[in-house]
Amino acid sequence: MWMDNELLQHEMKQIESQLKKSLKTRNKTVQGALEKLQQSGGKRLRPALTVLGATFGEYDSNTIVPLAASLEIIHMATLIHDDIIDDTKLRRGSETLHSMLGKDVAVYTGDFLFTRAFMLIADIAEVKLMKDISKAMAYICDGEIDQNEQRYSKNTTVKQYLKRISGKTAALFAMSLAAGSYKAGCSKKVVNNLGIIGRDIGMAFQIIDDILDFTSVESKIGKPAFNDVIQGVYTLPLIFALNSKHKAETEAALDRMEEDHGESLRKVLEKAEVIEKARKVAIKYIEKARSKTMILPDALGKEAILEIIDQQISRKF
Amino acid sequence: MWMDNELLQHEMKQIESQLKKSLKTRNKTVQGALEKLQQSGGKRLRPALTVLGATFGEYDSNTIVPLAASLEIIHMATLIHDDIIDDTKLRRGSETLHSMLGKDVAVYTGDFLFTRAFMLIADIAEVKLMKDISKAMAYICDGEIDQNEQRYSKNTTVKQYLKRISGKTAALFAMSLAAGSYKAGCSKKVVNNLGIIGRDIGMAFQIIDDILDFTSVESKIGKPAFNDVIQGVYTLPLIFALNSKHKAETEAALDRMEEDHGESLRKVLEKAEVIEKARKVAIKYIEKARSKTMILPDALGKEAILEIIDQQISRKF
Repeated sequence: MWMDNELLQHEMKQIESQLKKSLKTRNKTVQGALEKLQQSGGKRLRPALTVLGATFGEYDSNTIVPLAASLEIIHMATLIHDDIIDDTKLRRGSETLHSMLGKDVAVYTGDFLFTRAFMLIADIAEVKLMKDISKAMAYICDGEIDQNEQRYSKNTTVKQYLKRISGKTAALFAMSLAAGSYKAGCSKKVVNNLGIIGRDIGMAFQIIDDILDFTSVESKIGKPAFNDVIQGVYTLPLIFALNSKHKAETEAALDRMEEDHGESLRKVLEKAEVIEKARKVAIKYIEKARSKTMILPDALGKEAILEIIDQQISRKF
Repeated sequence: MWMDNELLQHEMKQIESQLKKSLKTRNKTVQGALEKLQQSGGKRLRPALTVLGATFGEYDSNTIVPLAASLEIIHMATLIHDDIIDDTKLRRGSETLHSMLGKDVAVYTGDFLFTRAFMLIADIAEVKLMKDISKAMAYICDGEIDQNEQRYSKNTTVKQYLKRISGKTAALFAMSLAAGSYKAGCSKKVVNNLGIIGRDIGMAFQIIDDILDFTSVESKIGKPAFNDVIQGVYTLPLIFALNSKHKAETEAALDRMEEDHGESLRKVLEKAEVIEKARKVAIKYIEKARSKTMILPDALGKEAILEIIDQQISRKF
């Protein structure tokens, strides 16, 4: 497992401390919510990538830890704002912040996290990183706005989907892996390549995430929840079906969602074999990331990056 | 009038162009909304203060214009997020963004504006400003969260109110006036003093703004709308009344708001003379700002700052 990497293990602990420090606020309600948010954890993939990327250069914990933490904080902020919009009640098995404290506090807590992230980045005093991270954040917003505009649209194309997840998810993965190496003084070529690898990991991550909404069985109801579909977020498997000879049948199944709790949809997606088709797209990104990583110079973090890449395909949550 | 200042007039036009450039996005819906937002204008007080502050040092349009624009963009972003929370339908006579496009797009558009602001600030490549502006944004969030937590509380103290508007409003005014002078290479003393002056202008601005909710007559209904009170945002006049011998009567009037459309409240506030009392607090801030400005070194923008200070007391909207 990639977490066996000793440096990474050590640094991830430092990052948790940094997060704890940065997520302090004088408002007790928000403080409590932020602590809960931190404890509920998550994969911490983005800061891990920052640490691993930095091992390709001259590793300096003093700058990499706050940088990695700032990227996780940006991720947390976008999650909070996403949850407001999707009206999500649970995330990672815990109640979401806006569900606990109302959308009011959630909007500001997200904003607060953005400012905290920027304060950390400003502390590192690297103007180019500030620009790039601001740009990555703008891509995230673009992706989210696109997703919102494409909601319930039965005409979304694969190209539109890929563009949207490239902004929504892959931009921050790219930034996470590249930022570490940039700060560690790697060559432009290595930084660029790590950026592309990060982007491809992010694309695969999001496609698999989207597939899981169709395939992972919710323990309570014993079948997939189709949360995305219900919220009108149409992802790759569904988009494939809507762009296939099963279009009419898929549309009918969508209209029947409420009635039959997605039973028709499940059947038509199976018939159209779109889960496998979507998985193949994810695998393509994984393979690209893998082969690009293989030809990177040797570094302490290289093996762990390869493991993270491979893990994306097998993950079940 | 302070807008007679020739340099200021010229620079405000440049700032509008900069805003137009920065508020570009590939999403047509958001683009349209942002254009409307820009056209609906507003006082542009914050960027004006940045320009005027910079006249105390070596004025360079190339850095001051983007800096001033970035502060206005942060202000716009906070307005959009505020409107989501207050569920405001109109601002400056125009439909609010979240009312036009839904809270979904409004959350992201606010975020998008924050990133645009940071991109501008990063372009100026001044790490200290980045830190300070991030901090000012954190104060804004704190103030907004406080305001939210104090909603409908009949026990809010004057101290709590002042602290909350100091974060919500005055921090960005302070930043706006100080940032320009800092970037223009002023001495630490001048930068600090301008920061204090900006803060005091912001305090007066917000107190007067809050008073106007009680005194300005809405043309449609021919009497004050008491929007803040209805939304549970209790401001200085009301807080004075709730901390006076008229407490019980004021509480009863609040409970009767829906029934009598604020008629009892209007009467008790008049009897308690709290509008005048609140205005006096604003005047105290104005006087402090004025005397601190008088002893500043001479500069092209000094007279205009004094006019802006005096204007706060007389403004009717």
